[in-house]
Amino acid sequence: MEEDNAAGPSKKALKKAEAKAKKEALKAQRAAERVATQVSNIELEDDPAKDNYGAVANPTFSADAEEVELRDLDESYDGKKVVIRAWLQNSRTQSAKMGFVELRKGGNWTIQGLVLATITGTGTESQLPAEGTPVISRRMVKFITAINPESFIAVEAQVKRPLEPVKSCRISTLELHITKAFVLAAAPPVLGMTMAASSQPVANFSDEEPKAEEEVKKEPEAEGGIPAASMLTHLDNIAMHKRAPVQQAIADIRIEVKRLFRSYLEERRFKEFEPPCLIGAASEGGANVFRLAYFGQEAFLAQSPQFYKQFEIAGGRERVFSIGPVFRAENSNTPRHMTEFTGLDLEMEIKHSYTEVISVLEGVLLHILRGLRERCADEIQVVRSVYPSEDFLLPEPGKEVRLNFAEAQKLLREEGPEEFRNVRDDEDMSTAQEKALGAVVRAKYNTDFYVLDKFPETARPFYAKVDDAGTTVGDNVRVTNAFDFFLRGQEVLSGGQRINDPKELEERIRAKGVDPNSEGIKEYLTTFRQVGVPPHGGGGIGLDRVVAWFLALPSVHLAAFYPRTPKRLLP
Amino acid sequence: MEEDNAAGPSKKALKKAEAKAKKEALKAQRAAERVATQVSNIELEDDPAKDNYGAVANPTFSADAEEVELRDLDESYDGKKVVIRAWLQNSRTQSAKMGFVELRKGGNWTIQGLVLATITGTGTESQLPAEGTPVISRRMVKFITAINPESFIAVEAQVKRPLEPVKSCRISTLELHITKAFVLAAAPPVLGMTMAASSQPVANFSDEEPKAEEEVKKEPEAEGGIPAASMLTHLDNIAMHKRAPVQQAIADIRIEVKRLFRSYLEERRFKEFEPPCLIGAASEGGANVFRLAYFGQEAFLAQSPQFYKQFEIAGGRERVFSIGPVFRAENSNTPRHMTEFTGLDLEMEIKHSYTEVISVLEGVLLHILRGLRERCADEIQVVRSVYPSEDFLLPEPGKEVRLNFAEAQKLLREEGPEEFRNVRDDEDMSTAQEKALGAVVRAKYNTDFYVLDKFPETARPFYAKVDDAGTTVGDNVRVTNAFDFFLRGQEVLSGGQRINDPKELEERIRAKGVDPNSEGIKEYLTTFRQVGVPPHGGGGIGLDRVVAWFLALPSVHLAAFYPRTPKRLLP
Repeated sequence: MEEDNAAGPSKKALKKAEAKAKKEALKAQRAAERVATQVSNIELEDDPAKDNYGAVANPTFSADAEEVELRDLDESYDGKKVVIRAWLQNSRTQSAKMGFVELRKGGNWTIQGLVLATITGTGTESQLPAEGTPVISRRMVKFITAINPESFIAVEAQVKRPLEPVKSCRISTLELHITKAFVLAAAPPVLGMTMAASSQPVANFSDEEPKAEEEVKKEPEAEGGIPAASMLTHLDNIAMHKRAPVQQAIADIRIEVKRLFRSYLEERRFKEFEPPCLIGAASEGGANVFRLAYFGQEAFLAQSPQFYKQFEIAGGRERVFSIGPVFRAENSNTPRHMTEFTGLDLEMEIKHSYTEVISVLEGVLLHILRGLRERCADEIQVVRSVYPSEDFLLPEPGKEVRLNFAEAQKLLREEGPEEFRNVRDDEDMSTAQEKALGAVVRAKYNTDFYVLDKFPETARPFYAKVDDAGTTVGDNVRVTNAFDFFLRGQEVLSGGQRINDPKELEERIRAKGVDPNSEGIKEYLTTFRQVGVPPHGGGGIGLDRVVAWFLALPSVHLAAFYPRTPKRLLP
Repeated sequence: MEEDNAAGPSKKALKKAEAKAKKEALKAQRAAERVATQVSNIELEDDPAKDNYGAVANPTFSADAEEVELRDLDESYDGKKVVIRAWLQNSRTQSAKMGFVELRKGGNWTIQGLVLATITGTGTESQLPAEGTPVISRRMVKFITAINPESFIAVEAQVKRPLEPVKSCRISTLELHITKAFVLAAAPPVLGMTMAASSQPVANFSDEEPKAEEEVKKEPEAEGGIPAASMLTHLDNIAMHKRAPVQQAIADIRIEVKRLFRSYLEERRFKEFEPPCLIGAASEGGANVFRLAYFGQEAFLAQSPQFYKQFEIAGGRERVFSIGPVFRAENSNTPRHMTEFTGLDLEMEIKHSYTEVISVLEGVLLHILRGLRERCADEIQVVRSVYPSEDFLLPEPGKEVRLNFAEAQKLLREEGPEEFRNVRDDEDMSTAQEKALGAVVRAKYNTDFYVLDKFPETARPFYAKVDDAGTTVGDNVRVTNAFDFFLRGQEVLSGGQRINDPKELEERIRAKGVDPNSEGIKEYLTTFRQVGVPPHGGGGIGLDRVVAWFLALPSVHLAAFYPRTPKRLLP
């Protein structure tokens, strides 16, 4: 046996090795097949359909095929040859000869495609189809149905009516009979988050990385066994997060809010301006402000465009608005907070009364809320299919609800929950009080949108103008011409009349315990002394909150393009 | 004499004292008169016209007077009674009975007002006018003509045609016969910068505070003896800076650029999005980036929305644009630089070629430039009256100029100034070269707008896609599908096709000497690996530069609402 050993391996060992080699060859062959059916390095030399599929960056299509977007496909395309670029969302193999795919583009436009081999028989017995018929091989069918989901592909196809409507697709009365298919950008075999998971409601919004064991518990399976993912998983898979129709719809609604805000104001002669983000002094108090080194000085990130809006008024711009980022260095890890968010701000000259400002703000918010219902009905439905919500109740024109702060507190004491029986008219509301009030107002006035006016001066900043009539509440606290607006019991807007007289302003700055000669404040005050500044007022709307609370989303983070929280700055 | 002294002062001394007292009384009286003719604490008890003027926060007007904005006044108002709110720009006294004022509102809408006493005679002999005639006293005339310039006032007046057109006012064929005048917000007696000074070209843009002696030299008097002010003085008097018609016009033009950008893209299905300002890693290299403490981590201010635009494409948004602030921590004190400016960015899927991106960008810029000429003709003229410039030459439709980088360098070598005889095709251009090329192109092609394409890879970041054809220039340097756009020889846009294949991207990242596992880069690269990303490209436009170079302003700082420079963050 030693000889055998010396001469070579035993028969048994040989057999073993042979079996192993065969196994490995088989494995390699299968791997090769997998590769071949995927996107690159495919060996097509012997396939008569080889020019009709593959991973080709710049494929060519038939001259008579029309390039068209999925959303533009309608009955008029029936029978026509088209080229479609889209995400391959799903695929299945019906048989060796036939496969189905689902293509998606433009948010949630989906259509069914099918591919049917036209080469009959297999191997050496295969026969090409008649002249003029597209050449489609079984390998092509296999290739198409094996494309990794979420790859970006281009297909040439004939548009046809399906035998019966394809219920699973938005475009249900047409389907694509695919004759060419090219992978333009391949997704990997395994996605970090599938489209199905991405389309589930976000499981939790905690900023903390979960421990391995918790992970399992925290990502409960929804109906149909599709696991929901945490917000962290969504952010770690930002492209998949964004591709989900629900996020596409939220983004589209967000854009529409901005568009409605802008168009309403521009029609009323408001002019856009751009306040700076980098400022030389912490404008409204030093708390919650980001600081940075700035060429040997210190700079701050603006917490609001307040002072700059007022400079525009002082500068004769009459009515201005701005849309831009504002920053709060607040370590609040709640569904209502972000460290960077988008402010929709306006400021205007006042002719007779600050109620002119309320009317414009009420007007613009109602324009937004009514406009969304009209223009984004589809998108709202898509969002609701994932995050169910009750219809947002809007007041009938002329029946808008404006309550004074003291009236609202009285309502809360009398009709709100037990715990708010002693709320005071001279102290600001808590978030819990606001929500409770929202429920009371909804029940009483049948609206999810209302205004609270005449906040006590204790609850407002130094620039808020005190009520001319000298009205006081509670413990002799004066009320201001300042107000908040609410959606579903949550604040989305703060505004009011500002002090425009420099003496009055200085007095209020001192009364609030602020040094009128401190940096930033001094320059602010100086502007009022340098020139006459007309009476004016305005307000700031939190865009993210308007979107989130209108849609009753569980977190404002879902409304943002890239939510910034104290623990998360990626991506 | 000593007794006299003891008993009291001498007659001489008494006379002296009396004269002194009289003088002081007179002084006091004059001071009192000055105060009286100004804005507050006026004693009007004995003036029959007392209800028709004064410093009154909320004055009342005749019920039949129509509130109207200056810009809306036209011939149809001839003979009508109106209420106008405006800045008192100038005034002069014609006689004790008659005064003139110039009112301004809405940028540069000006009109002449006149006030004529209707009470005849003086003192006890004065007689009220006939019933139905407005009661206007000499004191009222005095009050009105003594109002400090740049105060915000409200007048009631009858609109009439003047005897001859008032050439000094924009509304020259109407004037206001003032019957009531109230100061709503008083300017101080001395302005930090007068409207005349504010309307002069800015004398210098240095960020350094001038020494006292230099100040005089550095602020030369312009024609008519009106002193021009430095940019620092303008910024120290921000309201007066903004009130000048030239700055109002620049601001209006800037707004129109944004509007034209947005409308062109929205018509072509681009969707707006908002990239974050706060980011977790210095996205495009660590130089020139602002850093800040962020809850125990470090955060950075975005230098461009580049990565985020690409994430939107990866996320299936197809065509996106953004308008927002970007930040550069660059210690450059030049008329071309700011530390915060507004980027107009877009990114789009590419179907066949990156020239689709050039076409969209060329389209949007031409839409902006042509749109400005049509919609802002008045504003352009106002700007030119202060900052003269030659007409901006636009190419005729279909004759747009696109040069390859190498062609441009050849042009510069052959037709440019002596000093650029040896410029290389594989090295980026300097600002001086760009300007020289601008002059050559203008002379040769009669356009101030053109595109340079196919920059060498040495001049572009790692995400720039290298030309498929493998074209090289100079010392075997490959060219990219990347381009710059120029206005009057100055760059306003950079763009190109981006790499969408993760392998190719990683290779280019390494080739540029960047670690693909470094923070920010890793997450960027990961996104391309996580999902298929379609071919795409885009560009970024500097809004401030488009405004400044279109108008041929001496500094980009004039185009910004609140220019941020290394030395200046106020206001």
